[in-house]
Amino acid sequence: MTGEFAALGRLLGRLGPAAAGEVGAGDDAAVLAGGVVVAVDPVVEGVHFLRSLTTLADAGWKALARNVSDVAAMGAEPWCCVASVVGAAEDDLEHLYDGLLAAASHWSCPVVGGDLAAGPGLVLTVTALGRLPTGAGPLLRSGARPGDGVYVSAPLGRGAAGLRALRAGRGTGSPAAAWYARPAPSVEVARAARSAGATAAIDISDGLVQDLDHLGVASGVGFRLDDVPVAEGATQEDALHGGDEYHLAFCCPDPTAGGPEVPGIRIGTCTADPGERTFRGAPVTVAGGWEHTL
Amino acid sequence: MTGEFAALGRLLGRLGPAAAGEVGAGDDAAVLAGGVVVAVDPVVEGVHFLRSLTTLADAGWKALARNVSDVAAMGAEPWCCVASVVGAAEDDLEHLYDGLLAAASHWSCPVVGGDLAAGPGLVLTVTALGRLPTGAGPLLRSGARPGDGVYVSAPLGRGAAGLRALRAGRGTGSPAAAWYARPAPSVEVARAARSAGATAAIDISDGLVQDLDHLGVASGVGFRLDDVPVAEGATQEDALHGGDEYHLAFCCPDPTAGGPEVPGIRIGTCTADPGERTFRGAPVTVAGGWEHTL
Repeated sequence: MTGEFAALGRLLGRLGPAAAGEVGAGDDAAVLAGGVVVAVDPVVEGVHFLRSLTTLADAGWKALARNVSDVAAMGAEPWCCVASVVGAAEDDLEHLYDGLLAAASHWSCPVVGGDLAAGPGLVLTVTALGRLPTGAGPLLRSGARPGDGVYVSAPLGRGAAGLRALRAGRGTGSPAAAWYARPAPSVEVARAARSAGATAAIDISDGLVQDLDHLGVASGVGFRLDDVPVAEGATQEDALHGGDEYHLAFCCPDPTAGGPEVPGIRIGTCTADPGERTFRGAPVTVAGGWEHTL
Repeated sequence: MTGEFAALGRLLGRLGPAAAGEVGAGDDAAVLAGGVVVAVDPVVEGVHFLRSLTTLADAGWKALARNVSDVAAMGAEPWCCVASVVGAAEDDLEHLYDGLLAAASHWSCPVVGGDLAAGPGLVLTVTALGRLPTGAGPLLRSGARPGDGVYVSAPLGRGAAGLRALRAGRGTGSPAAAWYARPAPSVEVARAARSAGATAAIDISDGLVQDLDHLGVASGVGFRLDDVPVAEGATQEDALHGGDEYHLAFCCPDPTAGGPEVPGIRIGTCTADPGERTFRGAPVTVAGGWEHTL
């Protein structure tokens, strides 16, 4: 959908402010009273997956993984999910659920309800709930401060490289293709980042630079990236701009002596110039990120 | 979708039991620790609405109303919702949100998040959260006992009669057509029923008899219906079997002297014969209910 972000921005303006102590639309997930976190993301055939490239079980896995990544990016623990399936033939449904239930088991995020309906194409919409640890606040996009380190949870680019390999018919054997089919969000890194005093976090689903730009705008900071680690089989361009990462980017002050280590890989620093977006000293283009189309 | 209930039944068998103190899939909504209730229902163009009959704003309204009805049927208060929109052109999105936000305001159930994606047809999936009053248990389908009265929250049949009127080109002026376009779930009756000691409840979305059958199976009771009130413009058949009601059916012991009145309209009695399904002394067909197709 061209203009996905513009359309989302207009809708956000219509939703009104969140209740006191809550966080409404505009972050990776909403945060409600009692530390309940809610994320929703659909997986649409022809947009988020093609049967010619991955299995329906992979699509079921990805539908939950996308949402678990959003929940983790808020600093919350996955709790449970509901799944609405539109337009699936009966056999398709079984295969979708094979992957969905495997993911639900993997993240201890059980499917507690759902619905089925006819429709013009296959759409699997998962809503995941998470819970913040007692007394902990959420990790928002807006909390980064100048001087914080910028981190990612893993080398990047596997989603884009995997999709390219599958399109080229280069099988599912490569680590990148396997990641594209069944991404594994950074739940443990998110937990450790929270413990280390992270100030802000975002799920990288639309490309590192584009998602860091969202974080920079929300926090009013710039960022200077020194080095962005590239996953096996990926290019530097994939790592900077590729979609389907489902890794975490976060900001964290330098660790104090004797304090917990900061997890993940440091890639740069938040700066006081809210317009700065640089990589190895040169401006980096924010456009070119990923608005979901296959 | 032919076989919607059969397919749902097979999936339920795969989901595993709910955690202690929680209620998983198989009721109108899931109930989680802390009294959080979660319902999800999609509204699909060509299945749940047609642009030739109602507006996109009506579809947005209905997408939340369906879920509010499920939340109310659990005895919970609407809390908030998230909305995932697939396949909407930009103007369509604004119109969908006109109705969705009007409903959110009407039931104090704000839209706290969501997502947009491209897709082959218009699918609006709303997930609504509710909260049980402190200390209150949920109203399940399984709690009815022989001797309980059977009640509905209003005269029935408006959904089916409204759809028929609209298909026949008889405008939107009739109460039934207006109800079909913008149903108003029985949140207040559900609240009063809970206070009066209701033992079981179900959202009537697939036809009274079919939904009461689900409740009867879950509770292990039969039901003997004496009189089913018919809404203006509807037929007795509409009231027994019509879809798109979004009213409530519930079971409740007879009120005690000095206790709270039971709200709604009494239509019959739960019986000890789990196979009994009668209306005015004759067996009533359960099949013929409504699996969503327009």
